[in-house]
Amino acid sequence: MGQPEAPPFAKIALIGIGLIGSSLARVIRRDGLARHIAVCARSHGTLDTVCALGLADSTTTDPRQVVEGADLVMLCTPLGAYAAIAEAMAPALSPGCIVSDVGSVKQCVIRDIAPHLPEGVHLVPGHPVAGTEHSGPEAGFAELFQGRFCILTPPTGADPNAIERIAALWRQAGMTVEIMPAQHHDRVLAITSHLPHLIAYTIVGTATDLEEHLRLEVAKFSAGGFRDFTRIAASDPVMWRDIFLNNRDAVLEMLGRFNEDLTALQRAIRWGEAEPLQEHFIRTREIRRRVLAARQE
Amino acid sequence: MGQPEAPPFAKIALIGIGLIGSSLARVIRRDGLARHIAVCARSHGTLDTVCALGLADSTTTDPRQVVEGADLVMLCTPLGAYAAIAEAMAPALSPGCIVSDVGSVKQCVIRDIAPHLPEGVHLVPGHPVAGTEHSGPEAGFAELFQGRFCILTPPTGADPNAIERIAALWRQAGMTVEIMPAQHHDRVLAITSHLPHLIAYTIVGTATDLEEHLRLEVAKFSAGGFRDFTRIAASDPVMWRDIFLNNRDAVLEMLGRFNEDLTALQRAIRWGEAEPLQEHFIRTREIRRRVLAARQE
Repeated sequence: MGQPEAPPFAKIALIGIGLIGSSLARVIRRDGLARHIAVCARSHGTLDTVCALGLADSTTTDPRQVVEGADLVMLCTPLGAYAAIAEAMAPALSPGCIVSDVGSVKQCVIRDIAPHLPEGVHLVPGHPVAGTEHSGPEAGFAELFQGRFCILTPPTGADPNAIERIAALWRQAGMTVEIMPAQHHDRVLAITSHLPHLIAYTIVGTATDLEEHLRLEVAKFSAGGFRDFTRIAASDPVMWRDIFLNNRDAVLEMLGRFNEDLTALQRAIRWGEAEPLQEHFIRTREIRRRVLAARQE
Repeated sequence: MGQPEAPPFAKIALIGIGLIGSSLARVIRRDGLARHIAVCARSHGTLDTVCALGLADSTTTDPRQVVEGADLVMLCTPLGAYAAIAEAMAPALSPGCIVSDVGSVKQCVIRDIAPHLPEGVHLVPGHPVAGTEHSGPEAGFAELFQGRFCILTPPTGADPNAIERIAALWRQAGMTVEIMPAQHHDRVLAITSHLPHLIAYTIVGTATDLEEHLRLEVAKFSAGGFRDFTRIAASDPVMWRDIFLNNRDAVLEMLGRFNEDLTALQRAIRWGEAEPLQEHFIRTREIRRRVLAARQE
């Protein structure tokens, strides 16, 4: 009988345990990727839920305590909490430990975390591009990542072995891993994720402000397109607040382009210009074909 | 043995046979709602497809011919074709015939069709609020309407019996029927359907115009929200062109409100105002709850 293979990590510390964190915990459990899963959350209620779900071997509300002896620390909180967590946990980080995260903006991760890390600790920021509109540890499931892309944005000079260990973790979760500079990531995601969410939040808000009798009908007749926006606009408010505040420049740039294009279509509608409208609508089908070709549907 | 019940209609003429028309044809076939289904389309290729699918008892490219002897004529073409079809078919309409439609704007239906109809023909405009991003007769399926709302907008003084016969048809297809003035319909749908489509078309267009290297990545990383927009923006271009041109005032009004709200959020992002952003995002969850409560998900 051969020796059972050692798991890739001895102790993984998850700080924050919402949709993404708890889905990752389920993958780690399912595939035996760590001997010990330690979970840190701000509230005891959340930690009780995590224990009831069997997702943690130990729990704490203290970021410093949770990272003790961990060879992987994964931040899964909203981006706005990163700097304070990094400062609090830094003194307890073990040499050789990898610090990674799942945040939707990447330049700010390097800005907020790197200055606090002691020598010999590896920073490998990551972004699994997957999600649902649901939040909290109960919402997670191990298959969330299957067939999606995970983007890693290691800073210049990052340890290749640390990068590979994080890449292997996400590949084990079913993801295709891509590596790119953080700045490029933030621009791509501004158009594919951040702007769509901002737009969806806006239009659902516009509908909320309508006269009450119209508002009731908005829900009823939402099958004409609106309900897709309500799903997007039901995503976690604090998480999204932090995304917009931390990817301001790229979001404002894409929003500027969007506004120009919307104004042009608005003008075509006002002046009854049939051809430019139709041409625009034909052109957008091409992008849909690319999404299908990339198998992201 | 009792006499088998007579079907509710002797001959139904479907003019236009895309997603909605062919789905309705499938319902009529499945439930035996007409003795004869006559289909009119502009191209012989479409009519061949319809025959191959077994959706028609007779086919023609002539709107005048298709309505001969029909007790129900259902227009399922883009809105821009209505006036010419009404003019062409009018002389062949039988007394007592009901003319209805499935268009997404309703004031223009009354404007474009009513003037052509002879005395004794009943106009009952309708809008089954259901759809997918796919087009053409192959894309239809009988269950498309199940659990959705159908809005009828009969003009003042319309025949109650004609209204009830159209309502019964859509109820048979699985829909809940609501009756409202055409003007009110056009305002409600401007926010629940037309504006969301315009926004989706815009943002997908904005992404299409990005530098080529970004464009390829847009498809790849679309799981972050963008892919929902690409689905909406893959809808039939001619149909949507006609919707915007024919519901101009309501669409421009809702677009004005949307622009004000987007500008306010844009300003909050630029100035780093965390609280207004978060409050807005919390508020939009309420509408999502209403959509779920209305069982339109």
